Amino acid sequence: MEKGILLYEGKAKQIFQTSNEDELWISYKDDATAFNGEKKETLIGKARLNNEITSLIFEYLQENGVESHFVRKLSETEQLVKKVDIIPLEVVARNVVAGSLSKRLGIEEGTVLAEPIVEFYYKDDSLGDPLVTEDHIAVLQVATPADLQVLREKTIEVNKRLIKLFDGLNVRLIDFKLEFGRTTAGDILLADEISPDTCRLWDKETNERFDKDIFRKNLGNLQEGYQEILSRLGGASCTK
Amino acid sequence: MEKGILLYEGKAKQIFQTSNEDELWISYKDDATAFNGEKKETLIGKARLNNEITSLIFEYLQENGVESHFVRKLSETEQLVKKVDIIPLEVVARNVVAGSLSKRLGIEEGTVLAEPIVEFYYKDDSLGDPLVTEDHIAVLQVATPADLQVLREKTIEVNKRLIKLFDGLNVRLIDFKLEFGRTTAGDILLADEISPDTCRLWDKETNERFDKDIFRKNLGNLQEGYQEILSRLGGASCTK
Repeated sequence: MEKGILLYEGKAKQIFQTSNEDELWISYKDDATAFNGEKKETLIGKARLNNEITSLIFEYLQENGVESHFVRKLSETEQLVKKVDIIPLEVVARNVVAGSLSKRLGIEEGTVLAEPIVEFYYKDDSLGDPLVTEDHIAVLQVATPADLQVLREKTIEVNKRLIKLFDGLNVRLIDFKLEFGRTTAGDILLADEISPDTCRLWDKETNERFDKDIFRKNLGNLQEGYQEILSRLGGASCTK
Repeated sequence: MEKGILLYEGKAKQIFQTSNEDELWISYKDDATAFNGEKKETLIGKARLNNEITSLIFEYLQENGVESHFVRKLSETEQLVKKVDIIPLEVVARNVVAGSLSKRLGIEEGTVLAEPIVEFYYKDDSLGDPLVTEDHIAVLQVATPADLQVLREKTIEVNKRLIKLFDGLNVRLIDFKLEFGRTTAGDILLADEISPDTCRLWDKETNERFDKDIFRKNLGNLQEGYQEILSRLGGASCTK
């Protein structure tokens, strides 16, 4: 497997071609961003932590019947994935009120939801990734109602699996964001990453934050929080 | 019919008890507000214009089989309505992109939608009346999924009727906001008002605005725009 040209550079990852046209080479970056890129910092070790954590989670999901674009880890900061066309929707599942939901509905952070909810946000930095309804998505023509049903079902399934995984590690899964892509065969496949950058993860006993809110809210050392998640997942710690 | 005590004062209306416990006395105010009350002005004659226009529109809807809380006009600025418990949702129907939809989706104002869309906003001034999805409404417990289906269907029906009404008056119905209430019998009934305060109405030939965007965007004399709508609806003009 050879790394080809850089196809795309996002806020947290670079994506390269490979010698196989159906696969991409992802290289995680040490950059942290928040508030639509307004807050930005380089945090040494974050690339490795997110790559290791995402790899372990995608492996766990695959072992439990949830397919994704993940093929295999290539190095501490790189992984190989199947090439998909990303659907420009962030699919958010929430078990507990936090972040923007707390502000939108005026409900205290930490309130447990009776049922998990799913939200869609339109991936567009220039618009600030706005919340969109199914009617808006029809206007944008980025997914059909049938696609949305698939996204919703897959997200609920991932939520169930991740709650179980994290519960065993004494971690509460508050909410998380998924992205999906279309394969060349037209199937919808889980893609992107699942890491403390894209999940809210609180310690079950203390509610200590182990996720990007450490960075958003200046709550301490981000790498220590992410390392705690990696350690509980059974991954190696790093002495760098 | 006698006017009782003031029950509630909103931004544009006062609501009084009446001697009949199933009916309320609504008195329109000459106040215009926008941007969640940040912009505010008294515009003499607005109360009469909105009361006359709302009365004519509710009468037209009732003649066409769409029930509402409207009972009858009491004076130039007052009307009698059935008492309902207002559901705290603003139900918006849109035929053409304008206002917040243009900003949210990055689509140019004036773009015609292939199909009308319906949006729900949570009526809460302290939160800025946020857009909410059906999942959010379930969390807020202000309406059941079956209620939302009724709200959606009634709104689409009102939209069809109003498009027809305004089209005959050379006016384009861009979008509008409805509110609904529950009767003591538990039925969902169209309530609030339908006026240039709650609709976007553009001249079919020139796209001249005849609605509250005149006030929001400082486009000229609000009363002249509202009077144009009242005149086209066949209402009297006012020499005050």
